[in-house]
Amino acid sequence: MPELRRDPVIGRWVIISTERAKRPDQFKGGIEEERLKEGEKCPFCEGNEAMTPPEICAVRKAGTKPDSPGWEVRVIPSISKFLQVEGGLDRRGHGMYDLMNARGAHEIVVETPSHRMEAAAMPGQITKVFNVVLDRMADLEKDPWIKYVLMFKNHGAAAGGSHIKHSRLQLIGTPVNLKRVKEELAGAKAYYDYKDRCIFCDIIKQELSSGKRVIAESKNFISLAAFAPRFPFETWILPKRHSCDFYKMDRSEIPDLAELIRIDFEKKRKVLGEFPYNVVLHTAPFRRDRAKRGYWETIEHDYHWHLEFLPILTRVAGFEWGTGFYINPLPPEDACKALKEAEV
Amino acid sequence: MPELRRDPVIGRWVIISTERAKRPDQFKGGIEEERLKEGEKCPFCEGNEAMTPPEICAVRKAGTKPDSPGWEVRVIPSISKFLQVEGGLDRRGHGMYDLMNARGAHEIVVETPSHRMEAAAMPGQITKVFNVVLDRMADLEKDPWIKYVLMFKNHGAAAGGSHIKHSRLQLIGTPVNLKRVKEELAGAKAYYDYKDRCIFCDIIKQELSSGKRVIAESKNFISLAAFAPRFPFETWILPKRHSCDFYKMDRSEIPDLAELIRIDFEKKRKVLGEFPYNVVLHTAPFRRDRAKRGYWETIEHDYHWHLEFLPILTRVAGFEWGTGFYINPLPPEDACKALKEAEV
Repeated sequence: MPELRRDPVIGRWVIISTERAKRPDQFKGGIEEERLKEGEKCPFCEGNEAMTPPEICAVRKAGTKPDSPGWEVRVIPSISKFLQVEGGLDRRGHGMYDLMNARGAHEIVVETPSHRMEAAAMPGQITKVFNVVLDRMADLEKDPWIKYVLMFKNHGAAAGGSHIKHSRLQLIGTPVNLKRVKEELAGAKAYYDYKDRCIFCDIIKQELSSGKRVIAESKNFISLAAFAPRFPFETWILPKRHSCDFYKMDRSEIPDLAELIRIDFEKKRKVLGEFPYNVVLHTAPFRRDRAKRGYWETIEHDYHWHLEFLPILTRVAGFEWGTGFYINPLPPEDACKALKEAEV
Repeated sequence: MPELRRDPVIGRWVIISTERAKRPDQFKGGIEEERLKEGEKCPFCEGNEAMTPPEICAVRKAGTKPDSPGWEVRVIPSISKFLQVEGGLDRRGHGMYDLMNARGAHEIVVETPSHRMEAAAMPGQITKVFNVVLDRMADLEKDPWIKYVLMFKNHGAAAGGSHIKHSRLQLIGTPVNLKRVKEELAGAKAYYDYKDRCIFCDIIKQELSSGKRVIAESKNFISLAAFAPRFPFETWILPKRHSCDFYKMDRSEIPDLAELIRIDFEKKRKVLGEFPYNVVLHTAPFRRDRAKRGYWETIEHDYHWHLEFLPILTRVAGFEWGTGFYINPLPPEDACKALKEAEV
């Protein structure tokens, strides 16, 4: 059973993945290659359904059977079992250390049946994908062990993507609240406690009035270059109307969001060509029947979900993720100007 | 003048490096190559002193002049001027945002005159390097704007290293305390407030008694596989005697530390071959005449400097540095066993 171990000093949880473990000598030579091996098949392509565990759900043509061709979006459990959907947490100490079983969920949302299509470029496809993601998040909320669902995408080796480039999102349900999530919640709450306003709503207002970092807008959403971006061309997409839970969004607004994502993505492609990137959803943790205290007390008023789109164009040094100190060689105003001018 | 901008929600500071800025279209195609270009000279090699700014200090053979050959360790200002040693901070607001000038220091400690030598493998050389680093830190403490000095090393592209592989350390003096540093200080202080003991001293005691994660020991230092490591083969080196300030260490103990670093490093080389890595020093912030409150109140009792050695053998996904949630496929006990058994 994989373990969740807590760093005793700063409280960062790490999954020690016994299931996925390699032998120490298998790390020799460092990072692996970034191509499909000769003759290797993509497990995410239509027709190769037998290569994956049975699907959790799918958007399918009428009359087609699970785990067979005919789907448009397909959700499967991750092959790398570093989080397990069964069993309890068994929180325990080990001398001064804390650990628990790596209870949780890890699902892959295959965004298109074709290896070559990129979902971000096709609003119709993103709409279908997000509808499925909203279903999955609502379903994961029913698991009492899961406190938070991370939705993210790794594209390209530099962004942690695998050598299989098939367009897909990942959902990770964790049994603990993550440090960065807690920090963001604490920051938003401190602002709200002081000003009685949502900090993200204030950011949107200030950005709309200055205009210097607004890349594009739709009826319900806005795409911004962050004021203090870690990475060149880092952009955030936020709903204009205050809302803390991504998975509770009004589904009629998904096509509007999907079209803004397409515009934001294609502008980046125009300026940057093919590039490695991460997308990370920031949304509120599940709250269920928890006592309304701490971060939860005002979370519906002070927190505001958003998507962070992080191109990986510079080398991120270990000291940056080790210290939380980033160096960005491109002012976001310049990035914004270049993206705004790119016609798509 | 480059700017230090604060993310308004979580308080992370980012340097927006106007001096080093590239045009937006220069990011096209992503990360650059990792080799010296044909005919390109290494600015850190003996004989190429004219390629760098004038040296700050050096360990030199008697009779040789600054910025000429004859040195063993050489400290120069970084060419990328994303931190500036002159001027004030000019802390200011920008609507709801906070920024200040990127006042600080950025120095390169060239560890050997030869392009091919690796300082970590040569205890005599590391001893000279650390003596110089201690001098530089004591000197940077005199600059009232500098709150913290980061010492780190990036080796190899995957670890954020440049294409010039010449062995060197970097020192960055920052005018703000960094989020991760504050977090670690807060964690150590919380433990001390509760137990009246240093958490790192307790870690050393528990590790020595279990033995499962101790890689090597010397008279004054210990090398451990961390209990909750982010990366395979992540190791920490700590002084056995409690001390919060690296730069105030007893200089007579440097050779002992250097020899343990060599053992730790060569064991990794034996198991892993050539591999990309980061080394990050964790030490207490400068305290000067600050009022003794907050983190500073008990810091001399509760904080314990250490070196973190982070091999970059797996792809770190953006979601990991974005969320503080790491997945490590190798249990540290297995890494420790492999390193312990490697004879050097």
